[in-house]
Amino acid sequence: MPTLDFWFDFASTYSYPAAMRIAPLAATAGVAVRFRPFLLGPIFKAQGWGTSPFNLYPTKGRYMWRDLERLCAELDLPFRRPEPFPQPSLLAARVALVGLAADWGEKFCRAVFLAEFDEGGRIDDSATMARLLAPLGVDPAEVLASAQSEPIKARLREETQAAQAHGIFGAPSFVTADGELFWGNDRLEHALAWAVR
Amino acid sequence: MPTLDFWFDFASTYSYPAAMRIAPLAATAGVAVRFRPFLLGPIFKAQGWGTSPFNLYPTKGRYMWRDLERLCAELDLPFRRPEPFPQPSLLAARVALVGLAADWGEKFCRAVFLAEFDEGGRIDDSATMARLLAPLGVDPAEVLASAQSEPIKARLREETQAAQAHGIFGAPSFVTADGELFWGNDRLEHALAWAVR
Repeated sequence: MPTLDFWFDFASTYSYPAAMRIAPLAATAGVAVRFRPFLLGPIFKAQGWGTSPFNLYPTKGRYMWRDLERLCAELDLPFRRPEPFPQPSLLAARVALVGLAADWGEKFCRAVFLAEFDEGGRIDDSATMARLLAPLGVDPAEVLASAQSEPIKARLREETQAAQAHGIFGAPSFVTADGELFWGNDRLEHALAWAVR
Repeated sequence: MPTLDFWFDFASTYSYPAAMRIAPLAATAGVAVRFRPFLLGPIFKAQGWGTSPFNLYPTKGRYMWRDLERLCAELDLPFRRPEPFPQPSLLAARVALVGLAADWGEKFCRAVFLAEFDEGGRIDDSATMARLLAPLGVDPAEVLASAQSEPIKARLREETQAAQAHGIFGAPSFVTADGELFWGNDRLEHALAWAVR
């Protein structure tokens, strides 16, 4: 089965629709997807940006919020603008890495995006994480401890470096087994088509 | 008939596939398109950029060239990387404004994009302009003189200001009669759907 790596940051706005869409589309296309959370912050910093370009360039930011709102309406996805934006995504990314090494990772990722873009939750809050973990049949305290362990911290740093090595500069991004990079929620279908060609 | 304004810069890479696609798609959708060339340069300058962000951020630039190459292959459009990039688009935009006030504007716009992205021509060269104008049944010398007249120079400045007033920050962009802004070649279908809804 062909594979596709799905690189995303929980703080990234267009990663939200991509995360909600990718599983059924990949199943239809016959592609196995690997969820790969990483941190955009260090990559933005390397480009000289201290925050999201949507904050640095307000005209582009205003457009993005309107575009995302339209897109979610079209996809029948709930939408609420996260406050603050961007939300620190470090904790959620570490918890996701714990879950993706087990069998509850993808479900958790979608729950994080819904907490952020539907429920108005703070994803940098351990209480939010615990609330999202409880229905997944795992022990929140145990998972949160693993998420803050050295191996998981190191793994997230490595994943972010791997993203950078693939030429990734934004999220969501998709990388095929032969190294083709596709950037943006609107390239998901192209990435899947490339993966099976 | 609903209308859609198509804002583009001849130097803009993704404006090329948009310009080549828009007429048949709009005809099918029942939308009247207005071609509106403008200059991105002043808008980029207002954001603190002295050149294209694809040059300022080389990782993003490398991705863009690969993405555009793939996209053109998919659309069966010829593709060659313009040298230099970006090409100064002032002259071509002024000539286009002359043509769009007559009946040969859209044909000329497509010819400019093909000269740039297929034939490897310099679009800031009067000789290139004259070569593209000749088959359109107009007098190249006369058109080039009009293009450098004060009213046309003023009109291009006004169009660029109008683009900025619409919140346009990149090209191609599409604006519907009710003021909805769509940015990017991959939003063309969304813009047409919005125009007729």
